[in-house]
Amino acid sequence: MIVSVVYRSRSKIDLDEDAFSFLSSLEDDDTILHYDILGSEAHCVMLHEIGFLNLIDLKKILQALEQAKMNPKVLYANVREDIHESLEAFVIEQIGIESGGKMHTARSRNDQVILDVHMKIRENINNISESIIDLIDNLLGKAGENKETVMPMYTHTQQAQIGNFSHFLLAYVDALFRDIDRLYISYRRINQSALGACAIGGSSINIDRRKTAMLLGFDGPIKNSIDATSSRDSLIEFASSVSILMSTLSRMAEDFILWSTFEFGYIDISDKYSSTSSAMPQKKNPDVLEIIRAKSGLVIGSLVTMLSLVKSLPSGYSRDLQEFKPLLWRISTVAVESVKIMTGVIKSLSVRKERMREAASNSYAISFDIAEQLTVKKGISFRSAHKIVGALVEEAVSKQNIPFTMLQEEDIENALNRVGSSIKPKDLQRLIREITPFRSLELRSSSGSPNPREQCCMISSSYSNLASYRKGVSRRKENIITAFDNLSKIVNGYLQS
Amino acid sequence: MIVSVVYRSRSKIDLDEDAFSFLSSLEDDDTILHYDILGSEAHCVMLHEIGFLNLIDLKKILQALEQAKMNPKVLYANVREDIHESLEAFVIEQIGIESGGKMHTARSRNDQVILDVHMKIRENINNISESIIDLIDNLLGKAGENKETVMPMYTHTQQAQIGNFSHFLLAYVDALFRDIDRLYISYRRINQSALGACAIGGSSINIDRRKTAMLLGFDGPIKNSIDATSSRDSLIEFASSVSILMSTLSRMAEDFILWSTFEFGYIDISDKYSSTSSAMPQKKNPDVLEIIRAKSGLVIGSLVTMLSLVKSLPSGYSRDLQEFKPLLWRISTVAVESVKIMTGVIKSLSVRKERMREAASNSYAISFDIAEQLTVKKGISFRSAHKIVGALVEEAVSKQNIPFTMLQEEDIENALNRVGSSIKPKDLQRLIREITPFRSLELRSSSGSPNPREQCCMISSSYSNLASYRKGVSRRKENIITAFDNLSKIVNGYLQS
Amino acid sequence: MIVSVVYRSRSKIDLDEDAFSFLSSLEDDDTILHYDILGSEAHCVMLHEIGFLNLIDLKKILQALEQAKMNPKVLYANVREDIHESLEAFVIEQIGIESGGKMHTARSRNDQVILDVHMKIRENINNISESIIDLIDNLLGKAGENKETVMPMYTHTQQAQIGNFSHFLLAYVDALFRDIDRLYISYRRINQSALGACAIGGSSINIDRRKTAMLLGFDGPIKNSIDATSSRDSLIEFASSVSILMSTLSRMAEDFILWSTFEFGYIDISDKYSSTSSAMPQKKNPDVLEIIRAKSGLVIGSLVTMLSLVKSLPSGYSRDLQEFKPLLWRISTVAVESVKIMTGVIKSLSVRKERMREAASNSYAISFDIAEQLTVKKGISFRSAHKIVGALVEEAVSKQNIPFTMLQEEDIENALNRVGSSIKPKDLQRLIREITPFRSLELRSSSGSPNPREQCCMISSSYSNLASYRKGVSRRKENIITAFDNLSKIVNGYLQS
Amino acid sequence: MIVSVVYRSRSKIDLDEDAFSFLSSLEDDDTILHYDILGSEAHCVMLHEIGFLNLIDLKKILQALEQAKMNPKVLYANVREDIHESLEAFVIEQIGIESGGKMHTARSRNDQVILDVHMKIRENINNISESIIDLIDNLLGKAGENKETVMPMYTHTQQAQIGNFSHFLLAYVDALFRDIDRLYISYRRINQSALGACAIGGSSINIDRRKTAMLLGFDGPIKNSIDATSSRDSLIEFASSVSILMSTLSRMAEDFILWSTFEFGYIDISDKYSSTSSAMPQKKNPDVLEIIRAKSGLVIGSLVTMLSLVKSLPSGYSRDLQEFKPLLWRISTVAVESVKIMTGVIKSLSVRKERMREAASNSYAISFDIAEQLTVKKGISFRSAHKIVGALVEEAVSKQNIPFTMLQEEDIENALNRVGSSIKPKDLQRLIREITPFRSLELRSSSGSPNPREQCCMISSSYSNLASYRKGVSRRKENIITAFDNLSKIVNGYLQS
Repeated sequence: MIVSVVYRSRSKIDLDEDAFSFLSSLEDDDTILHYDILGSEAHCVMLHEIGFLNLIDLKKILQALEQAKMNPKVLYANVREDIHESLEAFVIEQIGIESGGKMHTARSRNDQVILDVHMKIRENINNISESIIDLIDNLLGKAGENKETVMPMYTHTQQAQIGNFSHFLLAYVDALFRDIDRLYISYRRINQSALGACAIGGSSINIDRRKTAMLLGFDGPIKNSIDATSSRDSLIEFASSVSILMSTLSRMAEDFILWSTFEFGYIDISDKYSSTSSAMPQKKNPDVLEIIRAKSGLVIGSLVTMLSLVKSLPSGYSRDLQEFKPLLWRISTVAVESVKIMTGVIKSLSVRKERMREAASNSYAISFDIAEQLTVKKGISFRSAHKIVGALVEEAVSKQNIPFTMLQEEDIENALNRVGSSIKPKDLQRLIREITPFRSLELRSSSGSPNPREQCCMISSSYSNLASYRKGVSRRKENIITAFDNLSKIVNGYLQS
Repeated sequence: MIVSVVYRSRSKIDLDEDAFSFLSSLEDDDTILHYDILGSEAHCVMLHEIGFLNLIDLKKILQALEQAKMNPKVLYANVREDIHESLEAFVIEQIGIESGGKMHTARSRNDQVILDVHMKIRENINNISESIIDLIDNLLGKAGENKETVMPMYTHTQQAQIGNFSHFLLAYVDALFRDIDRLYISYRRINQSALGACAIGGSSINIDRRKTAMLLGFDGPIKNSIDATSSRDSLIEFASSVSILMSTLSRMAEDFILWSTFEFGYIDISDKYSSTSSAMPQKKNPDVLEIIRAKSGLVIGSLVTMLSLVKSLPSGYSRDLQEFKPLLWRISTVAVESVKIMTGVIKSLSVRKERMREAASNSYAISFDIAEQLTVKKGISFRSAHKIVGALVEEAVSKQNIPFTMLQEEDIENALNRVGSSIKPKDLQRLIREITPFRSLELRSSSGSPNPREQCCMISSSYSNLASYRKGVSRRKENIITAFDNLSKIVNGYLQS
Repeated sequence: MIVSVVYRSRSKIDLDEDAFSFLSSLEDDDTILHYDILGSEAHCVMLHEIGFLNLIDLKKILQALEQAKMNPKVLYANVREDIHESLEAFVIEQIGIESGGKMHTARSRNDQVILDVHMKIRENINNISESIIDLIDNLLGKAGENKETVMPMYTHTQQAQIGNFSHFLLAYVDALFRDIDRLYISYRRINQSALGACAIGGSSINIDRRKTAMLLGFDGPIKNSIDATSSRDSLIEFASSVSILMSTLSRMAEDFILWSTFEFGYIDISDKYSSTSSAMPQKKNPDVLEIIRAKSGLVIGSLVTMLSLVKSLPSGYSRDLQEFKPLLWRISTVAVESVKIMTGVIKSLSVRKERMREAASNSYAISFDIAEQLTVKKGISFRSAHKIVGALVEEAVSKQNIPFTMLQEEDIENALNRVGSSIKPKDLQRLIREITPFRSLELRSSSGSPNPREQCCMISSSYSNLASYRKGVSRRKENIITAFDNLSKIVNGYLQS
Repeated sequence: MIVSVVYRSRSKIDLDEDAFSFLSSLEDDDTILHYDILGSEAHCVMLHEIGFLNLIDLKKILQALEQAKMNPKVLYANVREDIHESLEAFVIEQIGIESGGKMHTARSRNDQVILDVHMKIRENINNISESIIDLIDNLLGKAGENKETVMPMYTHTQQAQIGNFSHFLLAYVDALFRDIDRLYISYRRINQSALGACAIGGSSINIDRRKTAMLLGFDGPIKNSIDATSSRDSLIEFASSVSILMSTLSRMAEDFILWSTFEFGYIDISDKYSSTSSAMPQKKNPDVLEIIRAKSGLVIGSLVTMLSLVKSLPSGYSRDLQEFKPLLWRISTVAVESVKIMTGVIKSLSVRKERMREAASNSYAISFDIAEQLTVKKGISFRSAHKIVGALVEEAVSKQNIPFTMLQEEDIENALNRVGSSIKPKDLQRLIREITPFRSLELRSSSGSPNPREQCCMISSSYSNLASYRKGVSRRKENIITAFDNLSKIVNGYLQS
């Protein structure tokens, strides 16, 4: 049965039951219930401190709120439209309308909901950040073990240059650093309090918005009351940052899915992260990676929904905005879970170094090195060298795809003749044989290349970068805990006064 | 605790617990559990009829399946990856591996899941269709009452021509007919059985795919086994049809939100479908319409997720496809609920005819009629007439936006002079005064216009159109019921044999 | 300079120049210019036939229109907001306002634009359909050559069952048949005329909407004038069908990209469809396939834009709808080009049959066949057989991934012992050796499987399916041509009268 | 004719012509041509300074590049795949392969393209930022004039509280500050150079990546070579920031469209920004606002495309990424144009203050103030006050929606009795009459409310905030100019040496 009398001062006709359940966000509100109580406590403490609420009413309200905090189930005794109404209804039932009815002075569900959501999302940002930090840490560890694990690098999913496994892991690390940075920066916009904006235009009660913001661990209030209640851009920014993070994970997933095929065979996903088939006994499937890849699509869809929710919406709260909540909870969960699963995959990954080395040895991916060495040692232009090595490839391919090292002197001569080069076949053959895959890495001298020395530099600077994020996130978490502890002390102080 | 031994024939190491819950679709599978059992029964009956499964094993399996059907809770005794595994594990526990282990012959979760999903979505299509039929029915009823309810029509949200309320309702009806037609057509593609495609390449057991399709009420099997297990296009088509349906509803919602503002004041949403404010006692908000509008954004996002899930996916089932299930359930629910709520809004809508008529009377929306009558009565070109009436508007606007009927002869003369027209001011004044809003409707003679006679035609042809959809959907629902009844009889026949 | 006087009857102040170019759709209108002229001709012929427009005016207008048709450049002499204004302005300039100004009687840009767009999109649907027909034809041809081209089939990008190349091609064919069918069906909704709906509410001139529809080759008019001018659902349906078509192509692209890697090596994309690298001489990249895959993302984005354009839009034309045009043109081009390029790729594809066969021979993908044969020959349950073969795989993997055929009798004994099976190792060994990849295909007996006989059936029924689409599309194209020829004759008849 | 010999060292078969034009990005490359030349100059200067390129070759190359810079048309003499190939081909044609062929040493199109795109997008960010700064400036000016322009505020598109026009404008300002801040921050990630990452794995030539970065005005290089060539997250971040910016503009557009209806009548869009109708002479349509709203949907679609392009893409450049270019150019243009048009609309906006005041005076939006004053003056709880005012509203609505001020004492008594309140009707009547709309604003005392004093504070702090962005953007533009001037000097120095 619908019991929604609290706010229906104007109309005595109840909502249609289907309409009521269509509207109700109670299910999605569970996530913010605790914060709604904290927000109400801070608000009432402030109302008392500015002289609006007397000590007796304050104590009654705080008692009821603490009761709800201890045993949230009481809030669901009657079905309400949302948690804000449930909470006020409960308080009024406990202590009567003349005391309990004062809790909702100078505020509205419109500022309450965005307050609660910001409290939840700032927590989610910290949690996602911590999980990314852990993933980066594991990637760096794995990179350290694989600085000399030679393998082909790919462009267009075709073998391109010789590289090493650590270089891929460090590429993920750099992308993840930008991912964490986006979340880290958006935190400042999220860590702002809407409380006191009321429905849309503030209040004639002389409330102290800075005070409530501070009590709840925020950096300050969102100033303009229309903006505070109507805008969702910071939340969309959060969703967009999560979308981009998920695209980083989807790239890792795609690489690993490819590399763990029988045909590539570069890595083994641990059985702990592999699924089997109900029909095919031999199967060992990278399902968790596929789900991560899929979740990236899920987050894109959620972002689209958010953007289309606010598109064409006029100023002022509209109920459309309610749909943000389930989307925000879902993508937050997806982000944390996906990062953690990826961390587990990395930790337990087997790297088949021998197979990688073999692939590199047989690969034409050495072509670029040969061409560059021709420019260095023979002084010809890169474009001419490119043509010579192109001819070499044609020669090798025509001989059933044999590696360059198996080309005979006359094969090389053929290739050189075809492009009219005067380089001596023997010289070129020597050059080819000198450039082993590992030599290729050593020769690579540009900054940010897979050269093992470059890998060391990048690993060490990444560790120091990581430390500063770790510190920053910790400090933010502590700030929130400190604020909540402090609020709790103040509330207990009043209750025991 | 994870108990996932059934399919891990190759590996003895269990999945990581987090990975397991990350992968598990058990929660989303509740919706298809019943169909998974029916599918299994049909499959085993067929296996028996082709001589693969003996009667004793068949009876054992059917007994266990009936048990699960009666009391689905038994399937959740142990946590499994999905409902297919749960069901087989339960059957094996009940009757031993040598009988129970035969149930999964010549099939795979890959064909099972798409079988179950098609069974669910064909049901959803029928349900959504029925709810649309009911909405159309109510719109036609309301239109019948409002054929002469004069009101301004809008383009660019600005008053455009004189129209009537029924004409809007009939425009919704025509759009909804296309919406139902899209769903109706896509049903044929959904009502196909994947069973027997196995993992991807069929079976060497001589199964009868037509038989199982028929037993489950399908039109036939999806032929190619790769296609049957890999493709999701029919489901995306369904999602796209729902998206478009929701855009129709969002247009209705937007019209009604606008028309129920204080400023327009054309309609009153019933209190049964209106919300109030926790802060502002005067508020009566069209929240249900806003939520319908918002849900349209939700469905767009779901469609995007589906399209991005299949983009770049190679042939053959990948776990990414699992994400379709929750999306499909969600948008189906959204569609049915939104259509039903809209039906309730229409049923209980108050139309403020007087206010609409007044707005029409004061409106310059009569301009087009005046211009057309000038071409008819004065033989001047429409473009010249357009200029004359443009000048009239300028004149009227300059006099504090007075209606045309309040323009004095000299005002009209001014306007005519400005564009150098030789029409007599008196003639134009008479013409203006003759065209009342209601006269404007009567004059409108083009097919499909708001002329009341046209409204009658459109209403009556819509009713007959509606009847044929109603009949078609009923027949489809009966077909399914008949097939299920028949299957149930066959199963009971075997059980009692 | 802006010359936009035609429609500014009310205001004499011109649009801001930036605003003008922001609004102007002239660039996107080039595509429909021809159709705008045809529509205008049909409209004027009808206005004459109902007695509204006299023969002299009709002839003048038709002359001017024919002039514009011959030499469209004249329409761009002055910059206008859109092609409709350009055309009317040109006609008026040529023959004066009293004749030329009659062309726009009983119509509006709001019905004109959707008329033109429908004329263009029905043509595009036919063109896309023809290109799909050609692609299917080539796929069937290629399938016919590869019915016995054994290769592994994949699920989760891991080897799953033994299959053949033709089976993949036929899976694409079946998906493409649904793609063409969606377009084919949506044509009926597109082939409807909005003309005569005017701005939003029809006209008081007694126009004959069926007549103009017929003259322009349409099946009939879109009845309700609000619906005709406000709705874009049929165009979104078109976009959605193209999105799904592109997802089919993206799947083909992904398969081919994978199979043309060095590691898989199953196919060679022709050099005619391969790109090279500016840096790496050995490179042969499947760029066209990547672009097809990418275009699938482009179309998703366009669909999202369309859906978000109509979301929350009230009834009646709003300028937002103008954005449909460039999106529609772009996705139509993308569809035709992508299908044609894919056809070229298929035509020129080299299939490395030997490499495929070798991969199949060494693959554990035979496991499912072995398990099924165990159920058939040894009467054990499939689940038990699954466990036995699972143990075999473990054994083979532990011996450096040797193929089953290289397992010694004692290896097989080990495996059987591990799962407590009483099957004789020798029996199992014999069974393993009997099932060669080709034998596997022959054994596969389920309908729609890769068994060569099944391939033949599917190919032949696909050819007959194809023939009926070919016929239907041809007939539609002829209908349009016939209508246009007829209109041309009528126009010439009047001009020469 | 295709002339694509430059990079086809391996294959002598040309691309299929359709495939070539399908692949070619030449059209989209026009935008970055200039930057490709600058990048090439910086690269060659560096190659010389590290001793790889001798002075003679350097001068030849620089001469050819300067020639292309002066007269870009020469690059289109032959059709190439992209601008990078065109440029190298031109240089080689001019000065021969042995000099010209050296330009492409130690780089690849993969690092070039992302270099060029970053150069372009950093410029676009600055331009968009400048246009936002100008918009904010105009909003602040308009707000200053309207601090006392009383009007109703809306939630759910229903009258909510009394507010003023400036408060809305300032809400836009605060949202726009976050919009500019997101772009401002993302600039740091964009202002990084990919040059020297080569194809994917760097070079064995000892290039100086910091040097080229500095010469081109970048903050530094993107370190990891895989990351530099594969990642597009910073560009997606840009697109996401533009999407959010456009949603701010779409909200403004929606407000203005609503307020400029006949029914609201609060503002007049200038004729310079209004369109007319071809059919309805009275029409004055807010088309530019509708297009802004529509463009917001266009940008959402572009963002979706970008996210779906990178989803599931493995590491290493794939041709899919080429599709980023047209999307990026398009959304940049959309952003600048939309912001500028909105600025024009604001500048030329007429505010109908009298009409706004009248609406406020007749509005029940005063209810919240009455309820709050009851809590202040009568000491009752807000919830009780809410019920009293709810009853007042019922009373007034039942009397044909009369304003509160027209309620008689007995009406008020009725209302009070209905909720059992002991407040004296006369007291309540006095209270009602005291709270005029303007008094309501004065009473509003919370921070960030529409109180005129609060408006002043917000305006003044916004001006100072604006100044710092203005300064920051200017400095960044100067840095680029300085770097380019410096590069130009160096180039000229070499040319004249």
